[in-house]
Amino acid sequence: MQLSKRIQEMQFSPIRKLVPFGEEAKKRGVKIYHLNIGQPDIKTPETFMEAVKKYDDKVLKYATSPGLDSLIDSFITYYKEWNIDFDKDEIIITNGGSEAIMFALLAICDAGDEVIIPEPFYTNYNGFSAVAGTNVVPFLTKAENGFHLPAKEEITSKITNKTRAIMVSNPGNPTGVVYTKEELRLLADICKEHDLYLIADEVYREFVYDGEEYTSALFLEDIRDRVILIDSVSKRYSACGARIGLVASKNKVLMNEIMKLAQSRLCVPTIEQVGCANLINTPKSYFDEVLNEYEERRNILHKKLSEMPGVICEKPKGAFYVVAKLPIESGEDFAKWLLTDFSLDNKTVMVAPAEGFYATEGLGKNEIRISYCLNTKDLEDAMNILAIALEKYRNL
Amino acid sequence: MQLSKRIQEMQFSPIRKLVPFGEEAKKRGVKIYHLNIGQPDIKTPETFMEAVKKYDDKVLKYATSPGLDSLIDSFITYYKEWNIDFDKDEIIITNGGSEAIMFALLAICDAGDEVIIPEPFYTNYNGFSAVAGTNVVPFLTKAENGFHLPAKEEITSKITNKTRAIMVSNPGNPTGVVYTKEELRLLADICKEHDLYLIADEVYREFVYDGEEYTSALFLEDIRDRVILIDSVSKRYSACGARIGLVASKNKVLMNEIMKLAQSRLCVPTIEQVGCANLINTPKSYFDEVLNEYEERRNILHKKLSEMPGVICEKPKGAFYVVAKLPIESGEDFAKWLLTDFSLDNKTVMVAPAEGFYATEGLGKNEIRISYCLNTKDLEDAMNILAIALEKYRNL
Ligand SMILES: Cc1ncc(COP(=O)(O)O)c(C=O)c1O
Ligand SMILES: Cc1ncc(COP(=O)(O)O)c(C=O)c1O
Repeated sequence: MQLSKRIQEMQFSPIRKLVPFGEEAKKRGVKIYHLNIGQPDIKTPETFMEAVKKYDDKVLKYATSPGLDSLIDSFITYYKEWNIDFDKDEIIITNGGSEAIMFALLAICDAGDEVIIPEPFYTNYNGFSAVAGTNVVPFLTKAENGFHLPAKEEITSKITNKTRAIMVSNPGNPTGVVYTKEELRLLADICKEHDLYLIADEVYREFVYDGEEYTSALFLEDIRDRVILIDSVSKRYSACGARIGLVASKNKVLMNEIMKLAQSRLCVPTIEQVGCANLINTPKSYFDEVLNEYEERRNILHKKLSEMPGVICEKPKGAFYVVAKLPIESGEDFAKWLLTDFSLDNKTVMVAPAEGFYATEGLGKNEIRISYCLNTKDLEDAMNILAIALEKYRNL
Repeated sequence: MQLSKRIQEMQFSPIRKLVPFGEEAKKRGVKIYHLNIGQPDIKTPETFMEAVKKYDDKVLKYATSPGLDSLIDSFITYYKEWNIDFDKDEIIITNGGSEAIMFALLAICDAGDEVIIPEPFYTNYNGFSAVAGTNVVPFLTKAENGFHLPAKEEITSKITNKTRAIMVSNPGNPTGVVYTKEELRLLADICKEHDLYLIADEVYREFVYDGEEYTSALFLEDIRDRVILIDSVSKRYSACGARIGLVASKNKVLMNEIMKLAQSRLCVPTIEQVGCANLINTPKSYFDEVLNEYEERRNILHKKLSEMPGVICEKPKGAFYVVAKLPIESGEDFAKWLLTDFSLDNKTVMVAPAEGFYATEGLGKNEIRISYCLNTKDLEDAMNILAIALEKYRNL
């Protein structure tokens, strides 16, 4: 009995790799600050469970394949606030942004086709590429300039006759980069000139700091039929467990094809959709508070990192992650050491080695990703511990 | 901008093809009995919503990738009642049986590999095969002998060096066939002799009538590491909208690989899992009642079909479907005509043309699938209408 080559080549989650060492540390009674995961600690709006609890159909039926009307309508209303107009048949509800990414790749790529992605990138893009049989072709973005896009030629040099799309997460996981209007314009031009789709993963759309202006790929009027939007309630409403996302495009031909994929897996959970359809009624103040909270955390994090000698880290403008370059050889060794050999007052921190976010062998080895899904007090403590740990590790 | 060949070759749901004609009929005020869909009308056990309503975590977090412990444990308990022993790491919770099928194919097949399936079969096997890039290789089963398996050679003649698995739905959708112990033995022998997996889709396990003995593929001790079980709460608990299923195997190496797929899509919805974990506390009487109800329906359905001249239909032993061969040329034309040109006392019926359940071009043209997710009174009325309609259609 064979296993598929595809599955053997897939990787386990690099973020969860260190979990066993964390478990060990916990057993020894060490408290761990988790700076390694993208699970928000913010309260989910009560609107969600309110709607869920009111659900009283006697038969928990399959929903329609593209998603409940009420939920699609709520997203249409939501996008209107962003000045983005969607028709009903331009949105398909998915099992999280995750399934949306998979659907997008399956719909536009055959096995062996290529998708160009700035690295470091969200590691699960690898998983969905493996499912679709497509190849991730990375181009490099660097800590030194806050992971903004490189010159046009560095991107276009990656294009072959197998390239089908450019895929970006904006704001970025793991980097926290927020692309400028000019960067979006650059991507649009490349897509037009080379007949490519732009897969725009905007699940962190709300998480933009310093009053920075956010440019959605949907604002690019001249490539509206090339943009495939990936979205999700996971981060926006701290509702990761709901697994509700969507794939959307002004390209109706494409959306009609994606319906086949939606139909074959029948539908997305009914009750989660009912809950999410009511998220639109979350008071605006919820977002203001959340944004203030994250911005404050980002400030603490960046200040502390700046104070560590030899650490390179531009102030990230969005999402709730940062990739920092450390004055050491191996982020992975350091992250492991934090769990196995270090503690301060019986506390330590868990970070994600950034290597797993790169497709190019050898890159990111001296980098770590820190996520700030932790309240300001704990975050401050965690960063103080990290500073002392780094100092100690360098002197080993 | 291209679409993938894969997606262009995929089909839309054949069951839903007639929906627009149904809509039209409804607009004309015609009442439609739906004999075309596998959506049970039975009440979902209250245990589900009871648990959901009690959920009170303030943050709706991602669940673990293989599924909530409590849910996996409840399945382990459930299988024990069937004398099937599973360890925790032999079960991964999925988005319905649907995702389980996809995971199974992705884990054992590369693009171009083949899976042997008795036809007619559950159409969405096509969709997941398209995703995995695998080819469905059908062998024929016939209405005349109740869609039981053919002679061994007719199955083994389909095996090539690209064959990775045999996939069966038992009890069968769309046929209602329940394979005997001997038939399972035959499949096991073939799998052993030709080094194949057996993907056993047992989502209708409980729906077996006439006190017939049910043989799960997991009973086949000598091929335990070859069996990949597909399961789901959808039909068992009339909880289709929960989208909770699982893939399970005694083959731990395989399950470990499937974990990669589970990790890449992060997890299955938390609240649905919480609800489903409590389904195990549904009183046994629930199933007795459900089974009695379906058996009665099956009896009505079969009696009525037997009374129609020229209709071939062995009494199905399981699930809640039957494929009937009609004395006409085109089941599709008949099914459409029922909606567009026929009504009796302003009522008509909607059935599924069976053609869509066959992979071999030209087969099943004079067959329809009838599902009996309809209470006995309505079912009786619907079958009377169908009898008169068939008579009329034949005399057109
Ligand atoms: C960039 C990015 N895209 C997509 C996702 C998928 O999120 P979900 O499937 O929960 O919507 C994540 C989750 O962390 C992410 O960081
Ligand atoms: C044979 C068979 N397998 C699997 C499924 C998938 O069901 P679900 O994804 O709801 O678990 C169905 C649904 O009708 C089915 O008939």
